[in-house]
Order: sequence, then C-alpha cells, then structure tokens
Amino acid sequence: MVNSELENLDWRLLRMVYQTYTRVKSCLDQVFAEQGLTSEQYQVLAATKYLDAPVRITDIARWLERSTNSVSMIVDRMVKTGLLKRVRDRGDRRVVNVFLTNKGEKAFKPATIAARKSVQQIFVSLSYEDKHTFVSLSKMINYKLLKYLNPGADTEVMLKNDIKRSDNLMKRWLK
Amino acid sequence: MVNSELENLDWRLLRMVYQTYTRVKSCLDQVFAEQGLTSEQYQVLAATKYLDAPVRITDIARWLERSTNSVSMIVDRMVKTGLLKRVRDRGDRRVVNVFLTNKGEKAFKPATIAARKSVQQIFVSLSYEDKHTFVSLSKMINYKLLKYLNPGADTEVMLKNDIKRSDNLMKRWLK
Repeated sequence: MVNSELENLDWRLLRMVYQTYTRVKSCLDQVFAEQGLTSEQYQVLAATKYLDAPVRITDIARWLERSTNSVSMIVDRMVKTGLLKRVRDRGDRRVVNVFLTNKGEKAFKPATIAARKSVQQIFVSLSYEDKHTFVSLSKMINYKLLKYLNPGADTEVMLKNDIKRSDNLMKRWLK
Repeated sequence: MVNSELENLDWRLLRMVYQTYTRVKSCLDQVFAEQGLTSEQYQVLAATKYLDAPVRITDIARWLERSTNSVSMIVDRMVKTGLLKRVRDRGDRRVVNVFLTNKGEKAFKPATIAARKSVQQIFVSLSYEDKHTFVSLSKMINYKLLKYLNPGADTEVMLKNDIKRSDNLMKRWLK
C-alpha cells in the first residue's frame, strides 16, 4: 500500500466524522424543533437532569465539551424562558447549581419520547454487531484524539471516566 | 438481547459521534490556530480551491453542510481580511464565483502541510483495516440518516454523489 492511499483514508475518515455528525445533528434538530426545543437546549436539560447532582454550569459544559462561557449563556437564556432555574448551593454560597423547572420537566418528557422513537426508527435496521464495532472503533479513535490533545496525560483514565459518566447519564435517562 | 440494551447501544453510538466530532474539531482548531486561521476558514479555502470550478457560495455551503446564509457571512469576512475574492461570472452576470487571493493561497499552503502532518501523527498507529471498517460503517450510518432526512429520495444516489464529490476534492487536495 502506498503512503498516499493511507493518507487518503485518514481524510476520508475525518470527512465521515464530519458528515455523520452534521446529519445526526440535522435529525435531532428536526425532532426537537417539533417539540419547541433546540438540540442544544435538550442536551442541557438532559445533562441538568441526569448528571450526578448537584449540577453546575461547569458540569454541563464538560458534558457538552463546550466552554463554560458559552454554556453559561445558553443557561441564561433557558432561565429567562423558564426551562431552568439557578439555585445557590447551601453548603457553599459561591456555587450556583442548576435545576429543571416544572416547565422544563414538561418540555423534557415528550421531547425524550420523540427522540427515542426517531433514533430507534433510524437505526433499527443496523445490526447489533455493526453498531458495536462502530462504538469500539470510535473509542480507539477518541483515544488517539485525546492523546494528541492532552500530551502526557493519562488518556486511558480520561477515556474510562468519560465512558463511565456517559453510561451513568444514559442509564438514568433510559429508565 | 433485551430491547433496552439495543436502545442503549444506539445512544452510545450517538454519543460517540458527538465526542469524536468535537475532539476532531479541537485538534484541527489547534492546528489551524497556529497558522492564523480558524478550521472554518480553512474548510472554506479548501472547498473554494478544490471543488469543481467555478465555485459559488452554494457549492461551499453544500460541501460544509451549512446554510448558504451562514457561509455567505463567513465568505464576507474572508473577503474583508483579503483571503478570498468574489468575481462575477462572465457567462451569467447574476452569478458570483469565489476565488482564493494570493494572500489566501499563501495562508492555505502551510496550513495544509501542518494539518496533514498532525492528522498523520494522530492516526499513524491505527490499522488500515480499522480505519477502513470505520469508514464503511460510517457510510452505512449516513445512509440511514439520509433516509430519515429525505424520505422518498434516492438515498443511494445521494450518498454516491457525496462520496464522489468528496473523493474528487481530496484527490486534488492531496496531490
């Protein structure tokens, strides 16, 4: 195999990562728009509801892999529209925790049902094995990316914590 | 296998799509920032240079899977900073084509070298087979996503055109 073929494959892989992401986003944007939410808002609601409590802006930001600043602005807007509330931590008054309001809960529930239905519909005809292989390969790729982004860090542990956090949230969410 | 396990796998898959994308983006943001460009600007330069000429805003938008409006704004800013120029089409004066300026070419070249070097470094230890399997599975997933997003359309043809366009651009780019 010549070198250029290998390089070509790397870039085809990156292009697929980009396209898969933008299309998943389009699907979910569509589903959540029908529920009066943006995908972003739904992700913030899910993180607020299901990450280990109490949930702060920094926890949501880590989950979304976004800057604290940008998540703070999203949360601000969601507080204004009544989906979230900010409550000062009882133990440490400097810390602010985020919660769903009743309105937030009411928006979250049907959106979750709709998203689960659509995703099932999209992926029903892919085999378990194919999905599993895709997830495994994605983990390997993420390992390489984390290593590049965090030279010298214990990437293995980062990835494990990542997956643990993710599995915890999803277990609660799918209940 | 119970149903909830299958559903769990779908959502783990979606979470991996999200994380892989955000991390690839972080890597490339870092590489291009060192070259004085954003990833977005680099993508626009590459599309302008290597899509089938003449290149219009709509072609760039389709390549980036973004709205014409948002790409138009990016191009506007890049025209202002001197990386791109707009030229009216000779055949049809209503159409505007986009080109790289000398400054754009000069920014593009070292950024390309840097990106190719970094990507090679990130993926060098993944096997050809694993990369190939990942790309194949990604295509299957994209097929399902396209089908959901375009009910009734010939998804097979859409995906084929997609891959052809992508391969053409990359062949020129990697030359």
